Amino acid sequence: MVTKVKVVRDILEVNERVAAENRSRFDATGVRVVNLMSAPGAGKTTLLERTISSLGSSLRMGVVEGDIQGSQDAERIERAGAVAVQINTDGACHLDANMVATAVAELDLAALDLLVVENVGNLVCPAEFNVGEHAKAMILSLPEGDDKPAKYPLMFHESRVLLINKMDLAPHVNADPERIERDARTINPEIEVFRVSCVTGEGLGGWYDWLRALQGG
Amino acid sequence: MVTKVKVVRDILEVNERVAAENRSRFDATGVRVVNLMSAPGAGKTTLLERTISSLGSSLRMGVVEGDIQGSQDAERIERAGAVAVQINTDGACHLDANMVATAVAELDLAALDLLVVENVGNLVCPAEFNVGEHAKAMILSLPEGDDKPAKYPLMFHESRVLLINKMDLAPHVNADPERIERDARTINPEIEVFRVSCVTGEGLGGWYDWLRALQGG
Repeated sequence: MVTKVKVVRDILEVNERVAAENRSRFDATGVRVVNLMSAPGAGKTTLLERTISSLGSSLRMGVVEGDIQGSQDAERIERAGAVAVQINTDGACHLDANMVATAVAELDLAALDLLVVENVGNLVCPAEFNVGEHAKAMILSLPEGDDKPAKYPLMFHESRVLLINKMDLAPHVNADPERIERDARTINPEIEVFRVSCVTGEGLGGWYDWLRALQGG
Repeated sequence: MVTKVKVVRDILEVNERVAAENRSRFDATGVRVVNLMSAPGAGKTTLLERTISSLGSSLRMGVVEGDIQGSQDAERIERAGAVAVQINTDGACHLDANMVATAVAELDLAALDLLVVENVGNLVCPAEFNVGEHAKAMILSLPEGDDKPAKYPLMFHESRVLLINKMDLAPHVNADPERIERDARTINPEIEVFRVSCVTGEGLGGWYDWLRALQGG
């Protein structure tokens, strides 16, 4: 047990070191980086497609796509008009700083204003691994239920932004966005919450404003 | 890198040993064990509530509840009328055989026909860790999207049953259950697929029949 704990601690320490190197590289080129996390199917790629088509003319965006395998999402991002680099984790349930370092080596960071790292779909481990980002953002989709902040608190604690997505399904599911927001703020009083639908576009203005403000901050 | 790979291999080997011990204990008492997995909010606990109220008089059920923290789900299971033991993984994103061994020590296995291990909400790591179960079953909820078999293939490969849940939302989401089923069968030709709604009860008869058949098999 002691050995196992030590191995985990070492992994996290090495990760922090590489994350700091990534951050220096981002800051040297002026690109702002968001680590976007959620459970599978909450709408990360759809959010990015919308964001690219809405902000793409004023904000030069790139995406690092994290998936266990496959490159469907990277293809969607490129079709939407942004540059994308695919990372396949080959079984790993989260991105770490080293994977992101390898991916960004393929990008011209100086040509970007905003880089979004789309993490592996998972509400647990991605929250433990910094990748050098300026901010973590998360999506919870309403059909996942209003008990998720209490059950996956670290993700809510680490995120500066919570997008409650699929608000268009509110009439059809038994989940209260008010409760999600309240419980998320109990865990993280500073969290910014936007209720959105990435299908209809509802509520995305706040998210766009937040991304623009991040450029200045 | 070599060290990291070896640590992972050792962890999986130890897990297999403990899983085999669990399995012997299950078989000695005659209880059949299902490892139930899904992403967060796909409907595992709601499925179990339904199953307990439908089969509880003919099948003596127990549930091991795996959560990062909290015990809301175990309380729901007990209110539904089955015995429940809560495991808090304290950050870990999956149950392993040792956690399940500790939990079942608190149960009178001989008094049960069916034990369901409700895993942590995660489509990735739970599929790698046997806990001594007779079968793995998974839920994919329709709003998660029809691209999930291609993106999380191991879970579909390991599961004997796939429940496509939240079919009541089919008119409101852009996801094709036909594609899910086809892609799941490409990965795992033997997988049994049931399209269900744990809210309306639609389609659950096949799942109940499968659970009854597992008692004989």
